[in-house]
Amino acid sequence: MNLPSPVEDFLKRPNVAVIAAVRPDGFPMTVLTWYDWDGGRILVNMLHSRARLRWMRLNPKVALSIFDQQWHRHVSLYGTIVEIADDADFADIDRLAKRYTGQPFPTRGARRVSAWIEPAGWHGWDPSGELSSPGAEAT
Amino acid sequence: MNLPSPVEDFLKRPNVAVIAAVRPDGFPMTVLTWYDWDGGRILVNMLHSRARLRWMRLNPKVALSIFDQQWHRHVSLYGTIVEIADDADFADIDRLAKRYTGQPFPTRGARRVSAWIEPAGWHGWDPSGELSSPGAEAT
Repeated sequence: MNLPSPVEDFLKRPNVAVIAAVRPDGFPMTVLTWYDWDGGRILVNMLHSRARLRWMRLNPKVALSIFDQQWHRHVSLYGTIVEIADDADFADIDRLAKRYTGQPFPTRGARRVSAWIEPAGWHGWDPSGELSSPGAEAT
Repeated sequence: MNLPSPVEDFLKRPNVAVIAAVRPDGFPMTVLTWYDWDGGRILVNMLHSRARLRWMRLNPKVALSIFDQQWHRHVSLYGTIVEIADDADFADIDRLAKRYTGQPFPTRGARRVSAWIEPAGWHGWDPSGELSSPGAEAT
């Protein structure tokens, strides 16, 4: 999926993200997450015990909304989890922790898992139009 | 659904919210939204032309994550849209605009629709534990 370069630049920054997965009963569920943008794919990382990891293994369809500190600037994507892998050496969570905090991840006691998302579609909006997808309207 | 009173107090404030709906192809999709908490139900309001309104009519299962300015304080809920109604006199969008901006909604040109959500489940987390659901863990 090709994104306009201002949108890709926005995704490369350590912005806040909310991820949605779909529960086995069909309800979506949303939660805050760290992420990284890696040349067209999105990395997220979870505790091995997370309910949403189980849901993602059953249904790989997810979505993310990404915001900067100005709430109204945002990009939302939906897509498919194309890979789930144990983060055995904590390399991925360290990568995310350094991106957001400047430091390695402090907690090494519990197993963690990474998921890679391939976006299938997006929309965006900001007042300047820089992040706006074709036809996007305010409110 | 009964919520602890600190959680209900949190939902009553004009916090930022992200709503997830489910597209007809099964992908969730997320977007920023205004909301109000009204004695156990959640009000949201959209332009009549919004794609997510069409999706909600087909599938009433939605989720919201609600944040204050400190990103890590959040409450997430999933539930069902129990009512969809034309906001013919802009009363609902004015209610939301006043809640967030102190002013009536400035744009009266396009039809708007309200949806009422009945929560079915929730989780929350904050560093103090005030918003944390039973068993909630950090990161």
